[in-house]
Amino acid sequence: MAISGTSDDELAAIEATAVSYLTAFNRADAAAVVANYADDGVLMAPARPAVVGKDMLATVYPEVFEAVGFDMTYDIKEVVRISADWAFVRSATEGTETNKATGDVQPAQYQELFVLRRSTIGAWQIARYCTCKIAPMS
Amino acid sequence: MAISGTSDDELAAIEATAVSYLTAFNRADAAAVVANYADDGVLMAPARPAVVGKDMLATVYPEVFEAVGFDMTYDIKEVVRISADWAFVRSATEGTETNKATGDVQPAQYQELFVLRRSTIGAWQIARYCTCKIAPMS
Repeated sequence: MAISGTSDDELAAIEATAVSYLTAFNRADAAAVVANYADDGVLMAPARPAVVGKDMLATVYPEVFEAVGFDMTYDIKEVVRISADWAFVRSATEGTETNKATGDVQPAQYQELFVLRRSTIGAWQIARYCTCKIAPMS
Repeated sequence: MAISGTSDDELAAIEATAVSYLTAFNRADAAAVVANYADDGVLMAPARPAVVGKDMLATVYPEVFEAVGFDMTYDIKEVVRISADWAFVRSATEGTETNKATGDVQPAQYQELFVLRRSTIGAWQIARYCTCKIAPMS
């Protein structure tokens, strides 16, 4: 993993937000997932248009978890602080996803790009997040 | 489209790089696509792991254009300058894609998140780019 920036503590806090998101996602904890977003946070994910703002995010994540069960491990590829209040994290995830309607389980791989912003109280929050599917593509 | 930041000229330059990328992509001009990236630029796109650095990018884009023909229009959703040297752009694209092996044409929708960095000579370049497919998913 590549790490760059000026403060180890802040880099650890930035990475911790991404890890908090990824682990909450993996245990299908929608409230904990959404808690990592800024109020104006945006999700860009496969199969749906952008989800803008915490209210919409709080609606969409439970729908995702109702449809699919994820059992994924994450790999943080880089943590980069780009200014006092902004950073990005790039990661990759792989494991299995289970179609809850059919019970079908298949191997799955994704990659993720988090743009994070430091709040006025110093918390690193997800401002924009884009994830794309590596496999399977059907 | 939401625009925020301090300098209209710089915001226009940031948006111009994203538009240059999207229009070069649409005309399958791999060299022009890759020219918008920083040397350490990273592409995160469906169906393949992250493509890191200009050399790998210059190999991958021609493969993409050999397999699929795109006829897309773009919609810039927001242009945000986050520091003197960093910005992001969020966009959506829709149109058709043609499988060049089979000739099949189908409607397609994507969304895009660009993280851009200002170079030492003042050019806005793509540092990290993630695109995810909205439709079709098979």
